[in-house]
Amino acid sequence: MPIPTIEWVDGRIHLIDQTLLPNEFKQIYCDDVESVWEAIKSLRVRGAPAIGIAGALGAVLGIWKSTELKKVTDYLATSRPTAVNLFWALTRIEQTGVLLDEAQNIIEEDRARCRAIGQHGLNLLRNGDTILTHCNAGGLATSDYGTALAVMFSAHESGKNISVYADETRPLLQGARLTAWELMQAGIDVTLICDNMAAQVMKEGKIQCAIVGADRIAANGDTANKIGTYNVAILAKVHDIPFYVAAPTSTLDLSLKTGDLIPIEQRAAEEVTEGFGSRTAPEGVKVYSPAFDVTPAHLITAIITEKGIAHPPYEESLASQGD
Amino acid sequence: MPIPTIEWVDGRIHLIDQTLLPNEFKQIYCDDVESVWEAIKSLRVRGAPAIGIAGALGAVLGIWKSTELKKVTDYLATSRPTAVNLFWALTRIEQTGVLLDEAQNIIEEDRARCRAIGQHGLNLLRNGDTILTHCNAGGLATSDYGTALAVMFSAHESGKNISVYADETRPLLQGARLTAWELMQAGIDVTLICDNMAAQVMKEGKIQCAIVGADRIAANGDTANKIGTYNVAILAKVHDIPFYVAAPTSTLDLSLKTGDLIPIEQRAAEEVTEGFGSRTAPEGVKVYSPAFDVTPAHLITAIITEKGIAHPPYEESLASQGD
Repeated sequence: MPIPTIEWVDGRIHLIDQTLLPNEFKQIYCDDVESVWEAIKSLRVRGAPAIGIAGALGAVLGIWKSTELKKVTDYLATSRPTAVNLFWALTRIEQTGVLLDEAQNIIEEDRARCRAIGQHGLNLLRNGDTILTHCNAGGLATSDYGTALAVMFSAHESGKNISVYADETRPLLQGARLTAWELMQAGIDVTLICDNMAAQVMKEGKIQCAIVGADRIAANGDTANKIGTYNVAILAKVHDIPFYVAAPTSTLDLSLKTGDLIPIEQRAAEEVTEGFGSRTAPEGVKVYSPAFDVTPAHLITAIITEKGIAHPPYEESLASQGD
Repeated sequence: MPIPTIEWVDGRIHLIDQTLLPNEFKQIYCDDVESVWEAIKSLRVRGAPAIGIAGALGAVLGIWKSTELKKVTDYLATSRPTAVNLFWALTRIEQTGVLLDEAQNIIEEDRARCRAIGQHGLNLLRNGDTILTHCNAGGLATSDYGTALAVMFSAHESGKNISVYADETRPLLQGARLTAWELMQAGIDVTLICDNMAAQVMKEGKIQCAIVGADRIAANGDTANKIGTYNVAILAKVHDIPFYVAAPTSTLDLSLKTGDLIPIEQRAAEEVTEGFGSRTAPEGVKVYSPAFDVTPAHLITAIITEKGIAHPPYEESLASQGD
């Protein structure tokens, strides 16, 4: 990132407003917990690790003004229900007295974890590989280096010649707006496709593996991620292409036995029907818009964390990583 | 349709400009073969049967002005490469002396075929079924009643209580703009989803079958249709949901042994990157945008034509329908 996705500067949170990318690269400032809540809810900051960090810094902001920490963290926890990182970060903030230090620790650890994910993951890529990714699990989704994209950044930096196909990722086009932008900034060859083209691209033999991020991973490896991820995982399986999930261990929720227990956020119809400046569906049409889906573990070839590469059976491999 | 999708009126072609729907319902007029070519190329008229009709009427227009019929039909044939109906209609026009009569016959036969497809197909639907469809194979894609949607219109008219999920169908959103609009006009319960949500909707048990149209069907049943159809067919197979193709026999191209021989049209990057009225991807990003894909016959449960329902093996069942 040219500037950090999210940072604490002199008692304020600075963050890149990701709703404006790629047309406008603009930092915004949050002075109070309400503006942090709004920034998470409106996806100005998004990506599981980054919303964890935003939650932590938001709790710091809130407590500086209210002294009622639990009220502040409970309030922030209502902004988005699926990514467990938010609750994880808020709990860490609740449990420590030195709030800003702990929030800064979360950021520093996130950076280190992303770099480690990249280092572990790059071994899965061969020179000349083309990777399909979905949504944005890049520097914008974390404090600076990404999870799924960290693997690509690391491979690229290590001298491997790789290419990427990025699903545009309807309805909010994080792939088109954010992933394509990040990869172009890094000098990695990227081709944009619509989500419904992934099957054809795989059939043409263009893809050697798929790598995506995660919003919550259950003890058995079932993985919640951006809507459409389950679709990609099925296509990868049918075309005999490895499907990898890359995420820090803070994304593990070993309290959940399976992914059936992960709550799925439903988003507003307008994100589908008038997402980008013009109405694209009839007035009054019913819309169903789950923001996430759950990919069953049997479709996941491996899960890349900062601690290494977890293989099935995930009940065992993730339990040892979650320690 | 409140007015016909395409018709001949006093030496001009009247057609609904489908690029403006659902925000604006407007007829445009074509006075010469160049404007017909532009209307097909720009998708003002689209859908395999409807572009066949536009080709036929365009040839009539052209020959009235030029007397060089073959030159006119060859020119029209360059507008879009995938839907065989265009070449089929142009050949019929070339082979007959009474041009306008033949074009009007094509329209009348299209209407009769669509009605027959609806009647055959409705037997595949049970009361209470919910159907997934992709793109628009409705009245707007034909002279007035549709192919895939004809099945739904017929079932609804026969008193069956059905619901539909419509894939929005990126990049040009024919599902959001046209299918949702047509079904709402007909009083059929329709819910709009993004293409990448179909897998989740199927997993939730909401879908009893998928029905789509076709642009060209090879002798073995391999079917070219809007990009994303192959994706839907895979998802249907994985979720054990019947996947039906509905198309007139003019869509059969028995000269092609398999779908590998069907040419796939590539469309412009701007349809993906600036389709919603504002730029949604970085300037200069590479884009891959095939307009169609080919669904292999083994994923297709049955093919509904005006002659009946063809089951595998399609080499036999389609050969007898193509007679």
